Amino acid sequence: MTITFYDLCGRDSKRFSPYGWRTRMALAHKGLDYTLELVKFTEKDKIAFSGQPLVPVIRDGERVIHDSWVIAEHLEDTYPQRPSLFGSAEGRGMAKAINSFVNLTVQPLLAPLIVADVVAHVDAADSDYFVSSREKRFGKALPEVQVGREETVEGFRKALEPIRIVVKDQPFIGGVAATYADYALFGTLQWARCTSGFRVVAADDPIHAWFERVLDLHGGV
Amino acid sequence: MTITFYDLCGRDSKRFSPYGWRTRMALAHKGLDYTLELVKFTEKDKIAFSGQPLVPVIRDGERVIHDSWVIAEHLEDTYPQRPSLFGSAEGRGMAKAINSFVNLTVQPLLAPLIVADVVAHVDAADSDYFVSSREKRFGKALPEVQVGREETVEGFRKALEPIRIVVKDQPFIGGVAATYADYALFGTLQWARCTSGFRVVAADDPIHAWFERVLDLHGGV
Repeated sequence: MTITFYDLCGRDSKRFSPYGWRTRMALAHKGLDYTLELVKFTEKDKIAFSGQPLVPVIRDGERVIHDSWVIAEHLEDTYPQRPSLFGSAEGRGMAKAINSFVNLTVQPLLAPLIVADVVAHVDAADSDYFVSSREKRFGKALPEVQVGREETVEGFRKALEPIRIVVKDQPFIGGVAATYADYALFGTLQWARCTSGFRVVAADDPIHAWFERVLDLHGGV
Repeated sequence: MTITFYDLCGRDSKRFSPYGWRTRMALAHKGLDYTLELVKFTEKDKIAFSGQPLVPVIRDGERVIHDSWVIAEHLEDTYPQRPSLFGSAEGRGMAKAINSFVNLTVQPLLAPLIVADVVAHVDAADSDYFVSSREKRFGKALPEVQVGREETVEGFRKALEPIRIVVKDQPFIGGVAATYADYALFGTLQWARCTSGFRVVAADDPIHAWFERVLDLHGGV
């Protein structure tokens, strides 16, 4: 069975989608090969077969799956003999709660810190779409959204405390091995690392050391 | 080995501590018998042997453990042959993150909704201590803290969304069986249920149905 992974790409084929990174790490964790298909923001026709407009999407044999969480569950259920993404049935629900915490709390606090920086990494063909859709979302010009981020970053850092409490004492949220809960937060921080020079996590933060550990996993994909 | 469990008690020996409930559920989950010692807010001398002033505390043979999370880890490590609180090593770290999320986000949003109601359930001997310490914490008279709670409860309910996303589709955060992640949030909601008539979770909220399921566990302790 061949997997095709449709991931967002920006300028120079750079891949920075936080949700794409989760799928990328999940596939690497499972040790699964795949064919990569790059999709720009304005190339939604490439994933029209999935019945919705958002990457990541995977085609796995006859099956088409979208939504990074659903993809993770699919990979776990379809390839149970490979390293587990959740550790156990109990861990699956807990990982889903942490994944949702990242989506609902961490991602919305991070976006206004870096959204104007992202523009430079979006493909030229996508630039107008990206800027106008994000300006609509934030209700102001993107450079204005970032004003004061040296202070507002503290709220973002504070929101990471439930994860910090865990990874200050052990290598990964999952213990000695990473789980999908690790990849959920990693994807969001990797989005910032790929698109912005702004330091969203302090160098002496245990979250920073944890992020570096996840970055080194799976041959440093 | 005999376990002694020191839990907070209020008027008429009522037990409502959110952290005490976590330990109570963890002990029930493990099927462990224990001797209960009730401690009022102003009876900190009863737990002075633990070297700190907060319940829950357990004495398990020669060992004395405080902090509900540390107690959970102790029970898991000391009684591994009994039902697991975390499901797996991976689940332990995830449960710790969810436990911390409840402590840092859910509990602080709930407290101002019900703190004045709690007074009626505190033992008469503790009443002055409880009111003055909580008024100091909130910076105003306790009935004032609750003003407008019909509106502010919405922020509390919204904060439960990462858990709601999980338990709307499966019985417990842990899947078909409850884990310590379930008990962490349960303890906090049980605190409200034991001390306040205010409806903190709407009747049609999947969190409400989940709470009722946890309430029915372990013979409805």
